[in-house]
Amino acid sequence: MSSDQTCCMVMTTFADEANGRAIIHSLIGKRLAACIQVQSIESYYHWKGAVNQDQEKLMMIKTTVELYEQVEADILANHDYETPEIIRLPITAGLPDYLHWIRSECNTNRSK
Amino acid sequence: MSSDQTCCMVMTTFADEANGRAIIHSLIGKRLAACIQVQSIESYYHWKGAVNQDQEKLMMIKTTVELYEQVEADILANHDYETPEIIRLPITAGLPDYLHWIRSECNTNRSK
Amino acid sequence: MSSDQTCCMVMTTFADEANGRAIIHSLIGKRLAACIQVQSIESYYHWKGAVNQDQEKLMMIKTTVELYEQVEADILANHDYETPEIIRLPITAGLPDYLHWIRSECNTNRSK
Repeated sequence: MSSDQTCCMVMTTFADEANGRAIIHSLIGKRLAACIQVQSIESYYHWKGAVNQDQEKLMMIKTTVELYEQVEADILANHDYETPEIIRLPITAGLPDYLHWIRSECNTNRSK
Repeated sequence: MSSDQTCCMVMTTFADEANGRAIIHSLIGKRLAACIQVQSIESYYHWKGAVNQDQEKLMMIKTTVELYEQVEADILANHDYETPEIIRLPITAGLPDYLHWIRSECNTNRSK
Repeated sequence: MSSDQTCCMVMTTFADEANGRAIIHSLIGKRLAACIQVQSIESYYHWKGAVNQDQEKLMMIKTTVELYEQVEADILANHDYETPEIIRLPITAGLPDYLHWIRSECNTNRSK
């Protein structure tokens, strides 16, 4: 079933390693995410009339659409930014066994 | 409102650092993007019967759907590739305050 | 035509360099992908009650929606993981010449 749209990718960014680790461990420990990928990025944005640059890391979180609101709330509860980037991108198809693995890892009904 | 779909991610790639910097400063300076993330990638593609490999950087541009045509035109005007990668990926939900920040940074009505 | 939705991005991950190279060369050699971008990532996931971490690389494959099933099957045939990540993200717009290039590189009717 390649048109399976039950899963999604959520992205957030962080600068502090300990904070990033806290966000990751909270999401995976609570089974709100099946897996999280982290990569280094340079961030550019407008700040007081100039283009500012920061070193950050980007998280790509694989979870279910059903859990999105809980994922957003959990990131926000742990993040040290006042308004962190939290965006959801759709997954419109995928290997059925892999999408099944995401759902099984994110099972909200399992004991924690 | 987690189903907010006013924002999007635009991706492009570049090889020359000065050219990348010009594209970033133009987009942010003109308030066509709220923030731009840059990461190193290896690019593989077909070229004259073989698989070619280049070192490039990938830009992930956060902007509004409304501004997409202007973003595309601005990248094209500054890019040193004849046919650069310019693709738009949907953002189907996100932290309301963060999506609001994207829109406010991209406000086309503000004075420049 | 900025609402062109014939193309898509397919993501997979790998850990072994030789295996990654085999997947890339198979997809591009068979004209199942126009270009593939590779970047280093850290992967975090739940494993036996703890959060496990691996070093991997992430592939972002640009292809056509029409070819998706063949892309999935080709990755699976070459991948050394039993259940690799294979997910499809939509491209909802893009530079017309670039989208045309993806389609022309992925032409299933060309001689191979």
